[in-house]
Amino acid sequence: MMDADLDVLIHEVGPRDGLQATDVIMPSAGKIAWIAALREAGVRKVQAGSFVPPKLLPQMADSGDIVRAAKAMGGLSISALVPNLKGAENALAAGADQINFVMSVSEAHNLNNVRKTHAQSLEEFARIVELKGSDPAHAHVVLNGGLATAFGCTIAGPVDPDAVLRLAEAYIEAGADRIGLSDTVGYANPKQVRDLFSKVTAITGGLEVGAHFHDTRGLGLANAYAAFEAGIREFDGCLGGLGGCPFAPGATGNVVTEDMVFMFEAMGLRTGIDLDRLLTARAVMKSHLGAEPTHGAFVRAGVPKGFMPAAAWNQSR
Amino acid sequence: MMDADLDVLIHEVGPRDGLQATDVIMPSAGKIAWIAALREAGVRKVQAGSFVPPKLLPQMADSGDIVRAAKAMGGLSISALVPNLKGAENALAAGADQINFVMSVSEAHNLNNVRKTHAQSLEEFARIVELKGSDPAHAHVVLNGGLATAFGCTIAGPVDPDAVLRLAEAYIEAGADRIGLSDTVGYANPKQVRDLFSKVTAITGGLEVGAHFHDTRGLGLANAYAAFEAGIREFDGCLGGLGGCPFAPGATGNVVTEDMVFMFEAMGLRTGIDLDRLLTARAVMKSHLGAEPTHGAFVRAGVPKGFMPAAAWNQSR
Repeated sequence: MMDADLDVLIHEVGPRDGLQATDVIMPSAGKIAWIAALREAGVRKVQAGSFVPPKLLPQMADSGDIVRAAKAMGGLSISALVPNLKGAENALAAGADQINFVMSVSEAHNLNNVRKTHAQSLEEFARIVELKGSDPAHAHVVLNGGLATAFGCTIAGPVDPDAVLRLAEAYIEAGADRIGLSDTVGYANPKQVRDLFSKVTAITGGLEVGAHFHDTRGLGLANAYAAFEAGIREFDGCLGGLGGCPFAPGATGNVVTEDMVFMFEAMGLRTGIDLDRLLTARAVMKSHLGAEPTHGAFVRAGVPKGFMPAAAWNQSR
Repeated sequence: MMDADLDVLIHEVGPRDGLQATDVIMPSAGKIAWIAALREAGVRKVQAGSFVPPKLLPQMADSGDIVRAAKAMGGLSISALVPNLKGAENALAAGADQINFVMSVSEAHNLNNVRKTHAQSLEEFARIVELKGSDPAHAHVVLNGGLATAFGCTIAGPVDPDAVLRLAEAYIEAGADRIGLSDTVGYANPKQVRDLFSKVTAITGGLEVGAHFHDTRGLGLANAYAAFEAGIREFDGCLGGLGGCPFAPGATGNVVTEDMVFMFEAMGLRTGIDLDRLLTARAVMKSHLGAEPTHGAFVRAGVPKGFMPAAAWNQSR
């Protein structure tokens, strides 16, 4: 699935997961300028919106327009979050390349978040699989079975790894093209990450498995490295670490894209992303964010002296 | 060397490496209260000072008093940084259990930092080995051969791993009891960390090897995890991530002790440290720090719901 010139695929989810948690409602023109700057930086996959009722998430009301604008730029794979069949219809109509369906492994969290039991969520997912299959024009679309709270839950506490495996299997049986594991609330630790991803990839066969971490307790990049060690090659991130948890004031949000890109590039792994231009995209984002706090260490420190991006590093060997 | 009830030993270096970089000169009573609170939290090893000329580092002028006060508390292993024989004499006289001698792998950095070539630094270290050997009362003292800039240098840029290995061997031949590798300027990445520690431990035999990371580019904990995976079990940290680099304004400093303790405990690895009490020690530290900025994610987010510290976790298996 990944382009041959990349070792790691970074999936920028800021325009969805980041903005969803902010107080500010970014205007459509700001989102489009931000996505264009991400594309200029070499980012190849962006989560452009969430197809939920606008009254629930007014920040995402323009998701159809944003997906269409991002697709029109060319060269970008665009994902969108959908909670149900209706959302999937709208996402497909807008031209999304990947549909991220969400179910929490903690059933209490799932009931709270989408008001569905696991069985009901899986039925809804099966309807989306059917929808995709009904039109050959959608054959290329990736249906991602997202497993939220895979590493723990603010309601239920610890989450049983076997429950993650059972639900991943259920997704695959239902027709998922991809599995995504999310540390929705920032509970994961590197040992847990390595163990769980190893178990999941043992049952997913050739399906792509993605990782989504939060940096709530400072372990976002340690977890990303642990997932890489377990064989994962696709990582969600938010520029500037947008997406802090409303229940932990001041807490950092999603793993910081630019710090993660620096980590992988420093390790000699090609992300396809130019770090200078990524900071330009960060500045574009910030110019539309108002007083919303951003995070990250790389933006303050820059590259080490004599730093070589991975593409150059590999050529020099 | 490590107590049998621990899986990982945390070496709190804030009272030395942290305070050395701060504008404020913490009063002796503040340092002593801080170290006492660390001890209450279960921290077993603290770097209490630096035996350098007071005119160079006025923050460290009371190091003899602090080492003596910390030793009088009982139950703490106390290390001290020394740049030369004179410093070692003073550290031993004060009762330090570990002498941290420093040499930069980058010779340009070493000349800049201690005005010595590698050969001159190794001669000085040999004199300290002789000093230790001259008095049986010092038999228990650990002589740490510290290798600064082991992962890169702000002056020289990239550092050759073979140079690290050669200098580690030279230290061991000269009589070092321990080797410490420091990412002095926050350049390290997890792949480099894992590779270099694996190479170093292959030549150090039974000697303990410690790791010292900075979080300048956000990779401090990812690097600590990578070092753990390479077999390292002793880690330096600074409460609140004190020790930011004066050349990168706003940049974070040493790896944040409380975030690192949380990471290891969450992984089921016993540090012997109580996280609540560690935050109390952080508050004690802050009360003596004035407006000095502190860092860290754990302090804002706390433990996950249902979190079990490693000792309880291990018992429950």
